Amino acid sequence: MLRGVDAFAIKLEAFGALSLGDQAALNTVQGPVRRISAGTEIVAEGQPLRTAYILREGWTSSSKQLRDGSRQVIDIQIPGDHLGLSGILLSASDRTYTALTKVEVTQLDTERLLDALGTSPNLARLLLKAASREEAMLVEHLVSIGKRDATARTLHFLLELGARMRLVGRGSANRFECPISQATLADALGMTAIHLNRVLRQLREAQLMIFREGIVTFLDVEKLIEMADFDRGYLEDGMGLLG
Amino acid sequence: MLRGVDAFAIKLEAFGALSLGDQAALNTVQGPVRRISAGTEIVAEGQPLRTAYILREGWTSSSKQLRDGSRQVIDIQIPGDHLGLSGILLSASDRTYTALTKVEVTQLDTERLLDALGTSPNLARLLLKAASREEAMLVEHLVSIGKRDATARTLHFLLELGARMRLVGRGSANRFECPISQATLADALGMTAIHLNRVLRQLREAQLMIFREGIVTFLDVEKLIEMADFDRGYLEDGMGLLG
Repeated sequence: MLRGVDAFAIKLEAFGALSLGDQAALNTVQGPVRRISAGTEIVAEGQPLRTAYILREGWTSSSKQLRDGSRQVIDIQIPGDHLGLSGILLSASDRTYTALTKVEVTQLDTERLLDALGTSPNLARLLLKAASREEAMLVEHLVSIGKRDATARTLHFLLELGARMRLVGRGSANRFECPISQATLADALGMTAIHLNRVLRQLREAQLMIFREGIVTFLDVEKLIEMADFDRGYLEDGMGLLG
Repeated sequence: MLRGVDAFAIKLEAFGALSLGDQAALNTVQGPVRRISAGTEIVAEGQPLRTAYILREGWTSSSKQLRDGSRQVIDIQIPGDHLGLSGILLSASDRTYTALTKVEVTQLDTERLLDALGTSPNLARLLLKAASREEAMLVEHLVSIGKRDATARTLHFLLELGARMRLVGRGSANRFECPISQATLADALGMTAIHLNRVLRQLREAQLMIFREGIVTFLDVEKLIEMADFDRGYLEDGMGLLG
């Protein structure tokens, strides 16, 4: 049976019901829980990738280092997300995964996972849905960095994170724990930390949003969604996550 | 049996051999060839997506329109790529696919495709590899727009396109047909057309690369790869595509 803490299963169930067989399969493809301390590089870019992980607790980032030493944060992973699964079939990891907090991961047995997909078309479908959502998120980040101004970009990212947290049963429509530093957030948004700090201060002063002490509070969700041109469709699949 | 023109199969075969059964399955999941004229919107953003396509001939773009009327080109599709498959399981398309040239597409029967994946783990694995490569490409575009300067960004995109064309048996290591306008290329790179034009002129004057009359010619591939910090790994899977 499914343990209550398995955010991976909770996430997949947001896309459709898992049978008992699917739930059992999800358990057999995961190894024991491993604890990793904050700041650890769990997977390094360029490293031959033989192992993927499910993040059970805590937050990680995926990033890519450029030759000049600068870094682009590609995305943030929260409980229920996988680390490195999309790269497992390629010859090497195309990004670095770093623990932003103390994390708990399980190792994913990808051969068993492929077998499980072969025997459960339902599981394959739910995993494909989850993968589609990840791709849609990447597209939104590309659009944010290419086209959205600093405020819309910041809001879009935090609204998305809030919706993702809610999807795995953490946080509410207007409040969630967000244990990432402003420096990491700035890297993800392609902004300087100073610029981000100014944007956050303006949002706070306008009584629209507060990001303080690891908690994001949306004071006026509807207005923020409007400001960010945030289209709930790409995350929700008709689930009404943002109320 | 497989027709010689099935670029989709050719692309998948770059990731591993297709059995005769897999080849037959790929034929049964595709409908008859449809011809579509240049400029047509094949899939519109926000449209309920019930159909995905395989691009057999010609080029398309995927893009996202912002509320302010501006547009971010997300990617370019070439023969063998799919249109809309990653969004088929979500409730609506998250992007618009537009024919950049006269194109030929086949409609993809996604239910049959899911069935085929259930019966052929090999086919599932090759499709997952292709999807991983697409995700890696999206990540590279994100990094380009976030961090690479105009020249590196332009070169990275064209080197990638060249490698992709070569993967489906079109073009050589230093020359490929590239029937996209400078305006579309500029939109994809997040640059103005004027800026792109200047970058292309500089590259031509330095005898490094020529993009003229729909043909890209790399005059010094090694030097360009170095300038773009182009890591062949994410496309190649050990195939040595760029010589």
